[in-house]
Amino acid sequence: MTPLKPGSTIGIIGGGQLGRLMSLEAARLGFDVHIYCPEKNSPAARVSADETVAAYTDEAALRAFSRVCDAVTYEFENIPATSVAIIEAVGTPVRPGAKALDVSQDRAQEKRFLQKLGIPTVAFETLGPEMSLQQALDTFGGAGILKTRREGYDGKGQAVIQGGDDIDGLEKAEVLAAEAPCILEAFAPFEREVSVIVARNETEALTFDISENIHENGILARAIAPANISDDTRRAAIEAGTKLADALGYIGVLGLELFVMPDGAVLANEFAPRVHNSGHWTPEACMTGQFEQHIRAVAGWPLGPVERMFDIEMANLLGDQVSNIPAAYNGNVRIVSYGKRDAKPGRKMAHITKRNRS
Amino acid sequence: MTPLKPGSTIGIIGGGQLGRLMSLEAARLGFDVHIYCPEKNSPAARVSADETVAAYTDEAALRAFSRVCDAVTYEFENIPATSVAIIEAVGTPVRPGAKALDVSQDRAQEKRFLQKLGIPTVAFETLGPEMSLQQALDTFGGAGILKTRREGYDGKGQAVIQGGDDIDGLEKAEVLAAEAPCILEAFAPFEREVSVIVARNETEALTFDISENIHENGILARAIAPANISDDTRRAAIEAGTKLADALGYIGVLGLELFVMPDGAVLANEFAPRVHNSGHWTPEACMTGQFEQHIRAVAGWPLGPVERMFDIEMANLLGDQVSNIPAAYNGNVRIVSYGKRDAKPGRKMAHITKRNRS
Repeated sequence: MTPLKPGSTIGIIGGGQLGRLMSLEAARLGFDVHIYCPEKNSPAARVSADETVAAYTDEAALRAFSRVCDAVTYEFENIPATSVAIIEAVGTPVRPGAKALDVSQDRAQEKRFLQKLGIPTVAFETLGPEMSLQQALDTFGGAGILKTRREGYDGKGQAVIQGGDDIDGLEKAEVLAAEAPCILEAFAPFEREVSVIVARNETEALTFDISENIHENGILARAIAPANISDDTRRAAIEAGTKLADALGYIGVLGLELFVMPDGAVLANEFAPRVHNSGHWTPEACMTGQFEQHIRAVAGWPLGPVERMFDIEMANLLGDQVSNIPAAYNGNVRIVSYGKRDAKPGRKMAHITKRNRS
Repeated sequence: MTPLKPGSTIGIIGGGQLGRLMSLEAARLGFDVHIYCPEKNSPAARVSADETVAAYTDEAALRAFSRVCDAVTYEFENIPATSVAIIEAVGTPVRPGAKALDVSQDRAQEKRFLQKLGIPTVAFETLGPEMSLQQALDTFGGAGILKTRREGYDGKGQAVIQGGDDIDGLEKAEVLAAEAPCILEAFAPFEREVSVIVARNETEALTFDISENIHENGILARAIAPANISDDTRRAAIEAGTKLADALGYIGVLGLELFVMPDGAVLANEFAPRVHNSGHWTPEACMTGQFEQHIRAVAGWPLGPVERMFDIEMANLLGDQVSNIPAAYNGNVRIVSYGKRDAKPGRKMAHITKRNRS
């Protein structure tokens, strides 16, 4: 495609922190940003040139939005496929496209897609008429993690069954499984979790260095780059990410979460067709961060260099941890606030990064 | 003052690129920004939460603006003093305050203020009933630079009289001198031009490393850090900047331009009570850039560290030089676009920075 000129309008579906951080970088490159979000005055809209406040299924609003945008992207993966089709019918490109959304919206489909590419995943069973929760549990020795096939994030839509006499876990899983289509994943005795953030445009794919992820209560707490892994593991992670992006014909940035096993092998956990929380260290550590890289790809621009210049650690600030800004987070720490009004417990409000020379 | 909490609103008077770059950093720190600008849809307003479109002298609009802002700052130094007084009367702090504006708006007053602090300036004469242009020229051997006392920038409001038979220069100077109060500056046989960017809050003053400025046609073309100067000159420049900020009781970032003479001495040229074009290298080279530093000071926050981590060069892109984005400016170059619609010849449209490890 012809690169978009500065002054063009990039539409972003979704008004949260990822949209906000993409919008700030789009502005730096000279683009106007138009946010599409059901809530008025969203964190992203408050740093953007224009906003549409409408439901994600509002066909007339989607069409009007498409007509004023030169390209459209999104900050979350649960947009209805029909919404993307409406935008594309107007003639406005949506990047990354419908395929990445379709594959990533269903955990069963996602894992099968990865496996077909030769990217190993955690063992799983898809529940259904021919596979009950109990049958699936029996396959994995009575333990596992039940996950809804669609719409879970940050540990929501999940139930852990420890096995043995974990009645609570089993009951929670039974409720979930009765409500929505689910899969059961086997426990993977992994040593650590890492992410590969891949940027791809029509001519090349670049990966940021592999970072290590520390979760607390199902939510990413910290990301550390570089990850403490072997060169072989690093290569395997990069290869998995690149292969995935290529297979999706992906345009933009995606995040692939991987488990590192005791023998150094990697198992894919899940991917997100968007900029990713575990890549929030990249703007402060690299010449080009994930948000700029995503906008570059969406705009048809060449990607920027991704060399990591610093050893770095990123920490999420949840809920009222932001009330300590600025007092507790000065000195060598860089603050990125999301502009959210209401510091509900557990809500991602900001993140901080701490750089060290590599 | 009590530090402003994230979620507070910072008002910025002026809608150009400096307001835009301050607004982007304010957003990253979690502030909402409200832009006050006579033109609708300004570069700054297009990345900000809110805007007031009104004349700088519109008392009702200024009062309404003040009431929704927790602190107000400005991106240019030619705001009427009466406008600042109206805002302050509402009870909203304006930082940096009226004193810095007052001193910097009049070149004669500015130079006398610097001299009183023991900061040497270029020799000058103030034209008036008792000092004609010809008398002033005689003082300086028939040559000099005529400048309007107020409202000149980027070489506007200036006439160079080369001396000898420079009839054109003299005629241009006579026209200017008849139109507005002027000063005549002696030529300073300087070796190079440098800037010191000072950030000051209520408890400390920090200076960025001294950068060297290369002008073309009266407009800054490039800034290079570090400047190629001796340690003594560097110390003298830092001392001049700090002394000036202290004397003004300054809150925020200011830029002081200095001439470096062949013996290494510095002569103050002029200062701007705002973030400064010659400091545009700081966000890419330092932990804290000038825009963030200014917002920190305005918000009553502690200043960030200013260590320069890279050798760096910044270049302004004027007029249709931006039409080469992105093709000509990739690789190791970072682009900062101002979102201006109309690439008039000579208009500052964007800047680029190129980092090298120091």
